[in-house]
Order: sequence, then C-alpha cells, then structure tokens
Amino acid sequence: MRIISIDAADDPRIAAYRDIRERDLTGREGLFIAEGEVVLRNLVSSAGLCRPRSMLIADKRIAALEPIIAAAPADMPVYSVGQAVLDSVAGFPLHRGILALGEKPEPEEASAVLDRLGEDAVVVAAEGIGNHDNIGGIFRNAAAFGAGAVLLDDRCGDPFYRKSIRVSVGAVLRVPCPRPLPLADLVETLKAARFEVIALTPSATEPLAALRPGGRRALLLGSEGPGLPQGIIDRCRPVGIAMAGDFDSLNVAATSAIALHQLTRASGLRTDGEFSPRGIGGEAIAPIR
Amino acid sequence: MRIISIDAADDPRIAAYRDIRERDLTGREGLFIAEGEVVLRNLVSSAGLCRPRSMLIADKRIAALEPIIAAAPADMPVYSVGQAVLDSVAGFPLHRGILALGEKPEPEEASAVLDRLGEDAVVVAAEGIGNHDNIGGIFRNAAAFGAGAVLLDDRCGDPFYRKSIRVSVGAVLRVPCPRPLPLADLVETLKAARFEVIALTPSATEPLAALRPGGRRALLLGSEGPGLPQGIIDRCRPVGIAMAGDFDSLNVAATSAIALHQLTRASGLRTDGEFSPRGIGGEAIAPIR
Repeated sequence: MRIISIDAADDPRIAAYRDIRERDLTGREGLFIAEGEVVLRNLVSSAGLCRPRSMLIADKRIAALEPIIAAAPADMPVYSVGQAVLDSVAGFPLHRGILALGEKPEPEEASAVLDRLGEDAVVVAAEGIGNHDNIGGIFRNAAAFGAGAVLLDDRCGDPFYRKSIRVSVGAVLRVPCPRPLPLADLVETLKAARFEVIALTPSATEPLAALRPGGRRALLLGSEGPGLPQGIIDRCRPVGIAMAGDFDSLNVAATSAIALHQLTRASGLRTDGEFSPRGIGGEAIAPIR
Repeated sequence: MRIISIDAADDPRIAAYRDIRERDLTGREGLFIAEGEVVLRNLVSSAGLCRPRSMLIADKRIAALEPIIAAAPADMPVYSVGQAVLDSVAGFPLHRGILALGEKPEPEEASAVLDRLGEDAVVVAAEGIGNHDNIGGIFRNAAAFGAGAVLLDDRCGDPFYRKSIRVSVGAVLRVPCPRPLPLADLVETLKAARFEVIALTPSATEPLAALRPGGRRALLLGSEGPGLPQGIIDRCRPVGIAMAGDFDSLNVAATSAIALHQLTRASGLRTDGEFSPRGIGGEAIAPIR
C-alpha cells in the first residue's frame, strides 16, 4: 500500500505542505501545490505534463478519493492524516481535505509547442497579467475551448501559483504553457509559426463578432491596466469587443472567454456556414458551472 | 466646504467605516461600502440609483479625486484623514485611499423593472449564485453589454457585499436589480413580461452560437454546483455553450460574458445580417481591461 499514516504535523515527510500561504509568497523551486478533488483529478489525468510527487489527504476522505489515488503513479506516496493535523500543517482550515505536491514541467520553447499544433489551432497569448484569478480564468477558458497553448510574456505572473491553479480548476496543469518570452519576441514567434495574431484592443475598429473560426490564430490579451502597447498592436490584427458604451470595460479573463467562443470550432458555426453542435474534441456540449 | 478633517480613528463621525472586513460578515442594514476610484466614479454617476451618504479619503488623495467629490451630492460630507488613520479605521492597509458609505436602493418589484425595458432588451437572471466574485463578474458583464437588469433569485448572495461591488467595478451600483424572487416565480415573471427565457445548461442540444440578437430575452444562469433544476429548464428555451469536451466547464461569470456578447446588439451582428461596429449605447468599442 502507498497510503502512509502520519500522526504529527511536524513529520518531515510532509514538510513541503507546511504553511502553504506563506510559501505562496516565496515560491517553491520547481514545485507546486494543488488542492481539491476536481483539480487533483485534472492533475492525475494531465497526460504526464505535470508529475505529482505526493498527496496529503484527510483520512476520512481516503475512501471517496480512491479513484484519484488509483490514477496517480504507483510509486507516489499518499500521506493520510487526521483533519486537525491537516489544518495544522496547512496553516488554515483545509475543508477540501486533499492536497498534492507536484513538479512543474520543464517549459518547452514556444516555437516547438506551436509547431506541433494543427492548421486550425487557436492559442491564447497574454501580456503583463499579474492577477492570479485572471491567469487562472484564462487557462480555464483555454481548456474549455480546446486552445492548443497559453503563451505568457515575461511580465505575467506564475500560472503555477496555488490560487491560479485553483481558479483554473486544474487547467494550468493540462494546457501547454511554453517558456515566457518578451512580448515582441512572442508576437514574432507566433507569426513565424504562421499564426495570425489577433490583438484584442479597445482601439480596434474591426469587431470580434464579425470574425469566424478558421486557420491558425493567436488571441493576444493585454494587461489589465494600460493594455497592449501601440507598437505591438501595429504588428497584429486589431480586433475589439463592441460594448454598450456607457460602462467601463470587460475583465481580461471574460475577454478571453468571449474571444475563444467566437473563434474556435466549439462556437458551433463553421466558416462554411454549416452548423455543428459539437465541440473541438467531438464531444457534445460540456457542463456549465 | 464639505471636506472635514478628522484626526482620530475612533471619531464617531467615521464609525461606519470601522473594521470593514468584520462588518462584511454581519451586514450593514441597508448600507454598503464602496472602495477605489473607479467604483466611486460609478457610484456618483449612478443616476440616483444608490445615494452616497459620505466618503472617507486619504488626505493626500483629495486633490486628485476632486472630480468625484464634485459629482457627489453637495450636502454629502467628505472626511479627510491621514493614511495611518485610514488604515487603522479600515482594519487593513487601504492603498486605494478612498471609501464611500452608500445607501442601498429600495428594491423595486421585478415586474415594474421589466415593464420599463425596450422591445430588444436583454436581462440576466441567476439562480443560487453564492460566490461574491461571480456575482460581481455577472454585474460587470451586464453593464458592459448594456443589459437592462440583473434579476437574482432568493438563493443568491447580496450583490451589495463589498467584494461583489469591487469585482463589478461598480456595476452593482448602476444596473437595476429588483427584489429577489423564488426561481419559479422569477421565470414566470419574466415570461409574463414577454421575455423569452434562455436557460444556459449543459443538457441543451441547441448551441448558443446559433442564436442571434433580437427581441426581449432573459439569460438564465444556474448555480455553480448542481446547475438549473430540470423542472425550470423545461419551462425555458435550453441553450448550451459548445466546448472542447475533454475539460470540465466554464465559470458562471464567463458564461454570462459569452452569452451577452452573443445575444446583445453589441455583438455587432444584427438579425438582418447587417454589420454594425457600434454598441447598444451608440458608442464605439469600449476599453478592455
């Protein structure tokens, strides 16, 4: 059995799980913490992108979580603790009752990731996104609409931050995310790989709603404050989301959801005008939560 | 001058601002706290929907915030304090430097709000949304796409909760939100007001992308966990968002963004197939942040 009972919060075998929140701030050197049943299900089914190193589970939840444990690598230790020990180790009441320590994948070069994608692939690219909720939301939307990758510039936050993983419902652990590049290099790399780069920007005169799915495309999202630099927009196809006009703006993750729905095959409207109720993966409409 | 300098954190005139976070949990009896420059700009321009009762501003920010102060009611007191006093009153470092205390509007009946709306009005209706980020996100999207109202059922959280207001960027203070109703009554009220009720649900076979703007419509969103009850879906037009199929789901606020973009005039595609790059309010494309 890989299930190892632990009685003391200071047991060295679970030291990596100690004071989760404080360590969020200092980083984890190639490792990440994932929490909750749905996220861990995505971790163990991530097709080898991220390797789980261990799990820490409240003893009363072991039986219910057996399918997730069974899907993890056979040699991966599962530490079982009482709820009080779990709360004490984590540093706060951990109602979800399940944590995993995982190894971040070694990031690939963007060009290598892009070269593997198909002729109708859609990817998301983002500049200067610091907010972890927004990073998580962008990954969740990318996964929901089957985007081939999320490419971050070198001013974005770390998607493997605990909160981003949680908000993404584990999508961070499944969607390829190449090594970050400076924004200008990112745009050139996309163009060299024959992706049309669509810059979502309020300065555009072409509305998103006029576009249809088709061809290799990158949806480029700007930072929450200043947005994309004009010099970058000039090298892309600028497209905007028409709004009511008397209110401020859309959140960047909401923008990604709208653009992905409009420009992936999952939108159900093909370029030839033919109707398809099925998504990219050939599956019917997926759950909305 | 309405600007009143205050030196002590325990001054009774600013008692309502004390320990903001603790009071979030106990409620404020008809009042709400708004924070930050953009939110307060929406508060003072909310066309009388919500009345600001006072503001509390870090003295060093008074000059920069003069336009917002000038737009508030002339008899409304503006309390000016040093940053240290502000942090002490609020109970945490308040970098935004500006707070307002406002009066929640007396909620109108849903039927009265709906009767006032035009023949192409789109409204959002939601059931059982407890998460304050999601409530705020739904209001922000509703404002961005010019929805005529957000109708919550009696199991939703309070949109005037401080975090919901902040995430909505003040949209909660501007978009009409009638008195909550039980879900079944809400659906009947919408139908009685000649709104087609579109239930966003993964069980639908009709994809959202096949729909075009036109006529009075309500977009009905289910709770994050179980979704809409089948008995309710049966009384609506069920519509789903086609996805990649190998990933879980969309967040409910992201769902509202996609559906509003698809079904408002702001989508830039009119039912007659004519192209319009302008939004509902006649304004050009608004900022994306």
